[in-house]
Amino acid sequence: MIRAVGLISGTSMDGIDAAAVEITEDSPLRVKSRACLSRPYPKEIRETLATLCRPGAGLALDACRVSMVLGELFAEAALTVIEQAGWSPDQVHLIGSHGQTTVSDFGESSTLAGYRAFSTLQLGHPAVIAERTGITVVSDFRARDIAAGGRGAPLAPMLDSLLYGAPGKARVLLNLGGIANLTYLPASGDPAEVIGFDTGPANMPLDLLVRRWSGGRDAYDHNGVLAGGGRVIESLLACLRQHPFVAQPPPKATGSEEFGEAFIEQVLAWAPDASHADVLATLAQFAAETIGDAMTKWFPGTEPLLDVVASGGGTHNPALMARISAALAPTPLRTLDRIGGDVDAKEAVLFAVLGYLTLRGQAGNLPSVTGAVRSVPLGSITPGALGMVWPGLG
Amino acid sequence: MIRAVGLISGTSMDGIDAAAVEITEDSPLRVKSRACLSRPYPKEIRETLATLCRPGAGLALDACRVSMVLGELFAEAALTVIEQAGWSPDQVHLIGSHGQTTVSDFGESSTLAGYRAFSTLQLGHPAVIAERTGITVVSDFRARDIAAGGRGAPLAPMLDSLLYGAPGKARVLLNLGGIANLTYLPASGDPAEVIGFDTGPANMPLDLLVRRWSGGRDAYDHNGVLAGGGRVIESLLACLRQHPFVAQPPPKATGSEEFGEAFIEQVLAWAPDASHADVLATLAQFAAETIGDAMTKWFPGTEPLLDVVASGGGTHNPALMARISAALAPTPLRTLDRIGGDVDAKEAVLFAVLGYLTLRGQAGNLPSVTGAVRSVPLGSITPGALGMVWPGLG
Repeated sequence: MIRAVGLISGTSMDGIDAAAVEITEDSPLRVKSRACLSRPYPKEIRETLATLCRPGAGLALDACRVSMVLGELFAEAALTVIEQAGWSPDQVHLIGSHGQTTVSDFGESSTLAGYRAFSTLQLGHPAVIAERTGITVVSDFRARDIAAGGRGAPLAPMLDSLLYGAPGKARVLLNLGGIANLTYLPASGDPAEVIGFDTGPANMPLDLLVRRWSGGRDAYDHNGVLAGGGRVIESLLACLRQHPFVAQPPPKATGSEEFGEAFIEQVLAWAPDASHADVLATLAQFAAETIGDAMTKWFPGTEPLLDVVASGGGTHNPALMARISAALAPTPLRTLDRIGGDVDAKEAVLFAVLGYLTLRGQAGNLPSVTGAVRSVPLGSITPGALGMVWPGLG
Repeated sequence: MIRAVGLISGTSMDGIDAAAVEITEDSPLRVKSRACLSRPYPKEIRETLATLCRPGAGLALDACRVSMVLGELFAEAALTVIEQAGWSPDQVHLIGSHGQTTVSDFGESSTLAGYRAFSTLQLGHPAVIAERTGITVVSDFRARDIAAGGRGAPLAPMLDSLLYGAPGKARVLLNLGGIANLTYLPASGDPAEVIGFDTGPANMPLDLLVRRWSGGRDAYDHNGVLAGGGRVIESLLACLRQHPFVAQPPPKATGSEEFGEAFIEQVLAWAPDASHADVLATLAQFAAETIGDAMTKWFPGTEPLLDVVASGGGTHNPALMARISAALAPTPLRTLDRIGGDVDAKEAVLFAVLGYLTLRGQAGNLPSVTGAVRSVPLGSITPGALGMVWPGLG
């Protein structure tokens, strides 16, 4: 039995999610969550990260400095979740750390000196995590898939395919983070037929607006109270539906470049006199529609879906969930805890499992999902301590 | 016998040095260079890197994009040097890639949210190198030493200590790159008594001035012709001697932050009417003096030095070498080829050997040199292909 820790900070950049899991190496793999936690970033870190993401304002020197400090915070989160699981660090086989995505450049046409310059930057230096914990760290999962011609995202479909398939039935896993992404698991169970992509925004524009309007006091719309009290502004929704990402066929991935600060500026310019509640309700409706439309537009064949299984912070927003449920009807919308998962820790669990796959020499990407030309081992391995000998030397 | 490739681009940021070496695992280790090459960067890359290093101008997004493209260029250099060595890629056990240092933040007082934010950024993504070559890559050597409280530099003393000791005699290895660094190897051969640090500038300010004056046509003072025809400006030399880095005790490391563009602006402001040749001669004299002074100021005891053995691009500048030789007299100055090394490939060989040490589970830093609290494995391992199983899983 393998003890693994997964670490991630999402596109909302508000803190670290950590999970401690036991992996039993059966076929299929079994993963049991022992502990999980969320730990907010200090204010100074949140502000530094926000600056890093502002177009034209994020300095490489600051990225570099904050990466070392995020390494410290990720290490502390790892040590805390290990303690909560009742383990000691020397019992833990690995940490899979996604890090903090700050910069990503998903423009297909991006080239430099004649080469594809498609890139993404994950902060939270693995050397610091390995040094503080003494545990081997697997990190920077996206770059290898990008090097193999993929988009480096989404990665969740591998976990979904390993853990959450419904034999003989087609199922969709839906994660509602800053961005919404989904995984279509075919009834055949064949990984080559798995589809997965980002559908568009989920919490990101809602969170950014609530933070702005509250002067930073609220990080999100608690229980969806604001969005739940609003009405959809049809003229704004019509503008949102024209967003080029919606019409783009999968595989596709997005982030704060498309649905971050610049996007909410545009939203406010389109509806300058609207109430806060109405703007949030409209954005929730836009998220729900893009999720619903993605299923009718991009899924193969006529196989009926057993259900759509949601995870992520968005599951705690009843206003968003109600709109998604309506957009999906008659397919039922469930939450991940109903099929044995953890709605809040899913992404952290993902990176624990992806780290495990890399250390076992196995592929972590699904080429049908990311667009890569082949299956590759994801990430880099930072040894926890001296004395670990790489097997390739003979 | 291990076949390894080492890759580095130095602080002068003009191209990639690659070396293909055979490592024989005797005690002491034996390293034989099979091929080496230097490959200049395309103009667009040099310009992007120059912008990245300008204070306040280097964007994280650009660092991220250029890192992917440098990965391509490093991979091409590796494949070429492998061919020149008469090998095929599947015969090569590892690539050790230092990458391109662009940003480094060596200010001791640098903190963020209460944590030490001391950092350095190496570009040239290992995922791209591993994907293009199919060879396992060890990279990002400096961060782990920094995480262990060190400066992440210099790293050459480990190689010097393994390969170039003179049993029963004290010896100094001197590398003349953009920055000059030296390694003192004690007569005892005890690694704990090795001293190593950057003494200050070597080629960096000379190269930057020649590039500026020639409008980019010349990358350096060929054969030191300009510097050789100049005379030392005593008033300028007096100003240079006041540079705070000179008086700082080791362990110490420096880079373009202290001896790059801002430094040459200051030099030109101090001597606005001086001839180009005189400015270069004075900078060469400053480099020579800081090297000579370092030996009398910071070396322990009274053990006479057998010799000082120089490597790096600066060995091809007779004007610089003559001034260093005079500053060291009566200790003889030799070049590395005289004791079986390669003056131009030393740094590339270093990273091939450091990569090897990491894959063998051995330490790559010398705490007495970097200031780290302990010996640690350096770098991260990016698997070349599927099927490589990390031994720590049991």
